Amino acid sequence: MKNKKEIIASIIIIGNEVLSGRTKDLNTSTISTWLNTIGIIVHEVRVIPDIEKIIIDTVNELKKKYDYVFTTGGIGPTHDDITAESISKAFNIEYGFHEEAFSILEKYYEPGEFNEGRQKMSKMPKTANLILNPSSGAPGFYVENVFCLPGVPSILKSMLGGLNNVLVGGDPIISKTINLKTYESEIAKSLTSVQENNKEVEIGSYPFFRQGKLGVSIVLRSVNKREIEKCNFQILEFVKEKNIEVIEIN
Amino acid sequence: MKNKKEIIASIIIIGNEVLSGRTKDLNTSTISTWLNTIGIIVHEVRVIPDIEKIIIDTVNELKKKYDYVFTTGGIGPTHDDITAESISKAFNIEYGFHEEAFSILEKYYEPGEFNEGRQKMSKMPKTANLILNPSSGAPGFYVENVFCLPGVPSILKSMLGGLNNVLVGGDPIISKTINLKTYESEIAKSLTSVQENNKEVEIGSYPFFRQGKLGVSIVLRSVNKREIEKCNFQILEFVKEKNIEVIEIN
Repeated sequence: MKNKKEIIASIIIIGNEVLSGRTKDLNTSTISTWLNTIGIIVHEVRVIPDIEKIIIDTVNELKKKYDYVFTTGGIGPTHDDITAESISKAFNIEYGFHEEAFSILEKYYEPGEFNEGRQKMSKMPKTANLILNPSSGAPGFYVENVFCLPGVPSILKSMLGGLNNVLVGGDPIISKTINLKTYESEIAKSLTSVQENNKEVEIGSYPFFRQGKLGVSIVLRSVNKREIEKCNFQILEFVKEKNIEVIEIN
Repeated sequence: MKNKKEIIASIIIIGNEVLSGRTKDLNTSTISTWLNTIGIIVHEVRVIPDIEKIIIDTVNELKKKYDYVFTTGGIGPTHDDITAESISKAFNIEYGFHEEAFSILEKYYEPGEFNEGRQKMSKMPKTANLILNPSSGAPGFYVENVFCLPGVPSILKSMLGGLNNVLVGGDPIISKTINLKTYESEIAKSLTSVQENNKEVEIGSYPFFRQGKLGVSIVLRSVNKREIEKCNFQILEFVKEKNIEVIEIN
């Protein structure tokens, strides 16, 4: 994809629960899909354990390499929530109670309920900017280009909208999916030639087996709608020639 | 987790479809869960795009760092399937038709159906070892400590059993989950002290909101069953003291 204004991002999933296989990562899909709508492309995802040195090293490596870095997980009240302290160390900013975060949480809980564990959720790099949390109070935060979000998918999702005006994206990435009743090997050669003639569109081919149906999803992605339509036209041409059934286009 | 014989692995998910958010990665969970049963711990997962240089660099970096590396995706017949060729380059082994793989696929398809696209699936590092595919013919392969599997979850799953005798693991990792009707902040302090007293057990705490129920899963992981039981006992002690409802233990 040759987008001159390409803005790229990476995601760091901090969590032993994903590495152990216990939990399937849903946050990458949520973050990537949302970023595409504001013209930011995710180029890399890393899943790493709850180990301070690894968090610090990974953040320091990726914040230089990408326009934006998103972390998920590890900002709750328990002993295994070490993201906020690790980010403080990565940026060499004092870790402690964040005044605004403390005040938000103090108001959020009933009097007497704002216990030590809950107070911990307002500890972070002291000069961080907050990411407000409309669903459960405890804010995320960002320092420079590193945005720290919680791991619980529904809470994370509710917080993204608040960042729309903070991030600077490029042209939105548009995609089109053509589902065909065929095998990849039937269309491989024709698809290669369409890709060669359309360098501005990223063409992906993914076999699927679902609800007893076997087929191939061809996914076209680009910032240029006209180029996608041109590709789509060329694909439908060879699909017709080969007598392949189109299941759906969306 | 202090396992002297700790065998560690990483997973490389090769696929624009995961980075774009279109597809959720299910393969990490499948591979990690299976590896745990044979005493191998996944320490890192990377999701990277279908770009040759990135695949080569990532494989070369991780194969030195981990006992085993697993790649998923990019071994089909289409233009975006570039894993096999990239692995050949990473190991500096000639890329071409693998005799045994070619012969397997030739027998798998009806006469006349073994077309160019399908033949491509037998191209790989020529001296690679095969990973047999009981569900759809086309084999995966491995070179030294790098194991290349397909991206389609059901096919990948069917191929893992064939590796049980190839991989050398450590003691199986055992886990126990205690689901409590509480908030993380209620148990944070007590849990910290249980973790401090039980260094051989990795204790994770994960809030959940499902089926209208709000709670916390405490996950204990270790190679040592007795240590897990000791932890479990100590947790149930403070749970009882605090009058917290145990939803289930498994």
